[in-house]
Amino acid sequence: MTTTVAAYAAPAAKAPLERTTIERRAVGEFDVLIDIEFAGICHSDIHQAREGWGTAIFPMVPGHEIAGVVSEVGPGVTKYAVGDRVGVGCMVDSCRECDNCRAGLQQYCTGGGPTWTYNSVGKDGQPTYGGYSHKIVVDENYVVRIPDGLALDVAAPLLCAGITTYSPLRHWNAGPGKRVAVVGLGGLGHMGVKIAAALGAEVTVLSQSLRKKDDGLKLGATHYHATSDPKTFEDLKGTFDIILNTVSAPLDFDAYLSLLRTDGALVNVGIPEEPVNILLSSVFGHRRSISSSGIGGIPETQEMLDFCAEHNLGAEIELIRADQINEAYERVVNSDVRYRFVIDTATI
Amino acid sequence: MTTTVAAYAAPAAKAPLERTTIERRAVGEFDVLIDIEFAGICHSDIHQAREGWGTAIFPMVPGHEIAGVVSEVGPGVTKYAVGDRVGVGCMVDSCRECDNCRAGLQQYCTGGGPTWTYNSVGKDGQPTYGGYSHKIVVDENYVVRIPDGLALDVAAPLLCAGITTYSPLRHWNAGPGKRVAVVGLGGLGHMGVKIAAALGAEVTVLSQSLRKKDDGLKLGATHYHATSDPKTFEDLKGTFDIILNTVSAPLDFDAYLSLLRTDGALVNVGIPEEPVNILLSSVFGHRRSISSSGIGGIPETQEMLDFCAEHNLGAEIELIRADQINEAYERVVNSDVRYRFVIDTATI
Repeated sequence: MTTTVAAYAAPAAKAPLERTTIERRAVGEFDVLIDIEFAGICHSDIHQAREGWGTAIFPMVPGHEIAGVVSEVGPGVTKYAVGDRVGVGCMVDSCRECDNCRAGLQQYCTGGGPTWTYNSVGKDGQPTYGGYSHKIVVDENYVVRIPDGLALDVAAPLLCAGITTYSPLRHWNAGPGKRVAVVGLGGLGHMGVKIAAALGAEVTVLSQSLRKKDDGLKLGATHYHATSDPKTFEDLKGTFDIILNTVSAPLDFDAYLSLLRTDGALVNVGIPEEPVNILLSSVFGHRRSISSSGIGGIPETQEMLDFCAEHNLGAEIELIRADQINEAYERVVNSDVRYRFVIDTATI
Repeated sequence: MTTTVAAYAAPAAKAPLERTTIERRAVGEFDVLIDIEFAGICHSDIHQAREGWGTAIFPMVPGHEIAGVVSEVGPGVTKYAVGDRVGVGCMVDSCRECDNCRAGLQQYCTGGGPTWTYNSVGKDGQPTYGGYSHKIVVDENYVVRIPDGLALDVAAPLLCAGITTYSPLRHWNAGPGKRVAVVGLGGLGHMGVKIAAALGAEVTVLSQSLRKKDDGLKLGATHYHATSDPKTFEDLKGTFDIILNTVSAPLDFDAYLSLLRTDGALVNVGIPEEPVNILLSSVFGHRRSISSSGIGGIPETQEMLDFCAEHNLGAEIELIRADQINEAYERVVNSDVRYRFVIDTATI
């Protein structure tokens, strides 16, 4: 039997979000029912609610940074018990059979792609609804454990902002002796700085201005440069092993590529919608690469949470009530948040 | 005392090459004098002799695929003796002090860059002259040994075409279980196919037409597809771990990127002069990368020659006389060579 739960939803593209109710499926054999306590607001929630990324499914309940407590489990569930502190990120299912799924890279599922936490259609043919709600039912294989050391409110944003930065930093071997630049100090960027520093890398923030410099240094950066200053690009030529670009707006990619050392990687986690122009001679000569990375697989998401708990890395958040969501969206669009809005879902 | 040696040189940009004489420096303490027997013709010889890559130094003696025999050594030389079969590739010196030089990645020297074998200026302030000549004097540290199993004529092209393809194939881990596509079946591409197959990878040639299909399969490819056929791009989506692009002409990079598997790399060894447009969404979703690679360091060049000797991999060559160089240049420009012209330098 389905359960009716309160939620905040966009009734149509670009319409303000409003309180509503949705149906959650009955708890199946391998399902976990989660009482959601906190849900982060990711910029991609706004892109999708406003159909900036193409046609979307409405009503839409956004939210893929979900932290809560297990309140019921299906009879086949082995990994979680009632009372466990858990999280759900961007995916709630995938084909489970392709090479990538079997390798724990569910985000790169080639069997039709993952079922996203919202704005997607599950294997049951029903639309998925995200975390701006009181409860969610998720297959235990797409649930992760939030370690005791992490408060649920600051853990919520890790489910997207944390894993999106952790995964490429690990993949491209950020660590002692490596120089990492983080482009943009927003929701993703501030976690990128924290995680790269905790991994032992020497971290530089490249931000449009020096406005958030004090924050950047407190978060773990050693250096902070304004990209509006051409001198930055002269001074830092050939410096970085990894440039983690968290900005979706198009950049002068050739200029950023010139900041890489031999074998350095420019990794994009923000994706401009327009084609990017690069001179291949920017990557030539030093075996530089330009690449991208999308969230992370389920095992790596768990690894990231364990790492963040061990290093006491929560997100920097501004806790809001549900009736502040629309205002928060405007502030996210205007980059006016330090560094993540998190909805107290009890206020829905 | 300098030595006067016969050479073929371009007296000015775009002028036909003609016989002349040049001075080689006296054999210094760590120098090796090499009697050149064969010199390959690389497309980049033509680019430079015609100033296609910017202002060049004239007269120009091209040639960086040099195979010969040591005829004299300086008093400090420890690696080579008179009579040794040796080769010289694209570099004859570098700073020797930067991180890359110390790591054996002299091609990525950050201490001013390598001294190229020709069209460059050495530490002595003198222009360098390449392999289209009877003799050359080179510091022993920039000389490699040609193993007995390799004939000098088919070994010569390995000094550029061989290492340019071997280095990225090794760096991106071509080997058993990996699918490698080689784009373009020319001087570089034909060595790419041979080497990738010898490394144990499953090799596909992607060529404009099926004209050279029989050759491609004989060289070691298992599959051969025409890129002029749109079906190629439909059928091969998500197939390759490595795409080695040996073509300098601009491609539809998004289309090629779509042929990569998760974590696949599109590696360019030909460098278009125009900016390249890519959609970052082409690399997103599967952590694909676009990168480039330039020749290889001295230790890796030796490793490549040893590997080619072990696997009996010489270049497929057409041996010519020096008075055929200008005609050969025209044929290279028209892609009318299978697969490398090699000059018998005795005919200079």
